[in-house]
Amino acid sequence: MERVAILAHDRFPDRAKTAVGLLRYADHEVVAVLDRLHAGDRVTDHVPGVADAPVVGDLAAALSVADGDLDALVVGVAPIGGGFDPDWRPDVRRALRAGVDVVAGLHDFLADDAEFARLAREGGAELRDLRRPPADLELATGRAREVDADVVLTVGTDCSVGKMTTTMELAGGLRAAGEDAAVVPTGQTGVAIAGWGTVVDAVPADFVAGAVEAMVERAADDHDLLVVEGQGAVGHPAYSAVTCGILHGAAPDALVACHEAGREVVHGYEGYDLAPVAETARLYERLAAPVAPTEVVAGALNTADHEERAARAAVAAFADALDAPATDPVRFEVDPLVGAVREALA
Amino acid sequence: MERVAILAHDRFPDRAKTAVGLLRYADHEVVAVLDRLHAGDRVTDHVPGVADAPVVGDLAAALSVADGDLDALVVGVAPIGGGFDPDWRPDVRRALRAGVDVVAGLHDFLADDAEFARLAREGGAELRDLRRPPADLELATGRAREVDADVVLTVGTDCSVGKMTTTMELAGGLRAAGEDAAVVPTGQTGVAIAGWGTVVDAVPADFVAGAVEAMVERAADDHDLLVVEGQGAVGHPAYSAVTCGILHGAAPDALVACHEAGREVVHGYEGYDLAPVAETARLYERLAAPVAPTEVVAGALNTADHEERAARAAVAAFADALDAPATDPVRFEVDPLVGAVREALA
Repeated sequence: MERVAILAHDRFPDRAKTAVGLLRYADHEVVAVLDRLHAGDRVTDHVPGVADAPVVGDLAAALSVADGDLDALVVGVAPIGGGFDPDWRPDVRRALRAGVDVVAGLHDFLADDAEFARLAREGGAELRDLRRPPADLELATGRAREVDADVVLTVGTDCSVGKMTTTMELAGGLRAAGEDAAVVPTGQTGVAIAGWGTVVDAVPADFVAGAVEAMVERAADDHDLLVVEGQGAVGHPAYSAVTCGILHGAAPDALVACHEAGREVVHGYEGYDLAPVAETARLYERLAAPVAPTEVVAGALNTADHEERAARAAVAAFADALDAPATDPVRFEVDPLVGAVREALA
Repeated sequence: MERVAILAHDRFPDRAKTAVGLLRYADHEVVAVLDRLHAGDRVTDHVPGVADAPVVGDLAAALSVADGDLDALVVGVAPIGGGFDPDWRPDVRRALRAGVDVVAGLHDFLADDAEFARLAREGGAELRDLRRPPADLELATGRAREVDADVVLTVGTDCSVGKMTTTMELAGGLRAAGEDAAVVPTGQTGVAIAGWGTVVDAVPADFVAGAVEAMVERAADDHDLLVVEGQGAVGHPAYSAVTCGILHGAAPDALVACHEAGREVVHGYEGYDLAPVAETARLYERLAAPVAPTEVVAGALNTADHEERAARAAVAAFADALDAPATDPVRFEVDPLVGAVREALA
């Protein structure tokens, strides 16, 4: 088990979804979270229900907490656009000088930074850019619809509504119910958690569907049921290309629609209203149809910003709108998703 | 005006759409086409109505025809997957040694080939990879729907149905009708013809919409009416990501649907039936709606494989299916497209 520190300066936990995903779902031993705003707190002060660790102000403090025994520093923030924040440079330098690997899922590759490349060489550390596309990309052939495994895909009404979380919770719930289920990760957090996979939003657009198809074929060799992590949204002004490539490349047998309660406009694109969820669900089905017909069989609603009672009402309204079982898989039971998916695939 | 030779070995003209596009629409002086299968023929034996030139067997013969005065060798073939065919190596070597630039729109970049890079340096020639993404990619902001220019996008039922050709013919027809119309190129052939632009299928998927938006904004500064070159198809098993990113990035005011008469399955994906054209047109409209509502206002049908009478019947049936004016803009008049687009934008 890798011993890691997670860099999340100024953004932990609400704007550090990679950090939270790693804390919740990865096999790592997290020895510290770096966030200078919350230094001195405990991780569980902010994210209940995960293995606890201190929040520290910088890499030096993390090394001290780790008694010098640290395998990697993981960038736990996924900023829009995927750029490297110059504020992170001192901690990355310090890690590399101490021989600690640095892992990131940014569009800006750490290994392409001359200083970091030199420090890594000198320190005997590795720079691991999770978003760098593999060299052996191929076009989709359409074979994903023929794999032996059943394939479920999480799809969203928007970015940052809980597709990655739903993917992990659903796969966990399916395994708990006795299914041989595995996650097919497609984003930087999913790949960091799963320890394999291609971050498809960084793949040249011609090869997105092919990259997903290749992962589905690989995972289908070892598992009976795959939960593919969706990205973006079908009506997103910037990210819909990725969404569409995943939908056609995965050729799913069933879709799980993800949404955040109360979200009315596209996150970060305030001039763009979200369509009603039922309309978005039908659009995913229509878009899938030419390649592999499928249906939305369940819904996952992120209700973190609502009180319990409002959350339950929002889940009920979401289920009504979708005409399918729904839940908040983090806050409530994941069972409605697990049951709906098993029934749809039976 | 640049003096160029076009490499199209074994594939001219039917499987060399970049070559044919350059012959028809570019400002280049084409001094020869390289195709060893047809060496000795004339270009107009195969592509009527363009400036004539000899078809030659290799680069040496092209140099001879050009009296040694050749600016560039352009790879005129766009193979599926965008790979470099080792058969082309001798001609590329010969060009570079003679100080002739080599231009290609492949996914395999010429400049990344160590031998070509060395020969270019030694020969004083340039390797121009049209498909290399620009360094300053940005996410879409959604601004394309606010530009002053009107925007038309060509969309297809499949690859290789005539979107690039329709784009060029429509822009030409609009200019002939007095409109200040310009092409926004998005593919290797369009970029080679226009002399500017980004080949968006090679852009990391997150940035496809942004790359198109940036081109639309740039072209809208100088022109009143933009015809954006579409790519792929909304239901294509491999290329739909590119299609979707262009649709949302361009935020078009009108769509022109392109199809090939008689095409019933996806080109190269024989297990995938094409949906009826009306269904595909509605899917484009539904997919566009969340970002910028638009409609299919006209249709362009490639009837090259049909006799005149069958071609006219096919155009009429296509217009009926779309419930919009249609034509084969290469074989017949482009006027129905020009009229429908002007009416829709009025």
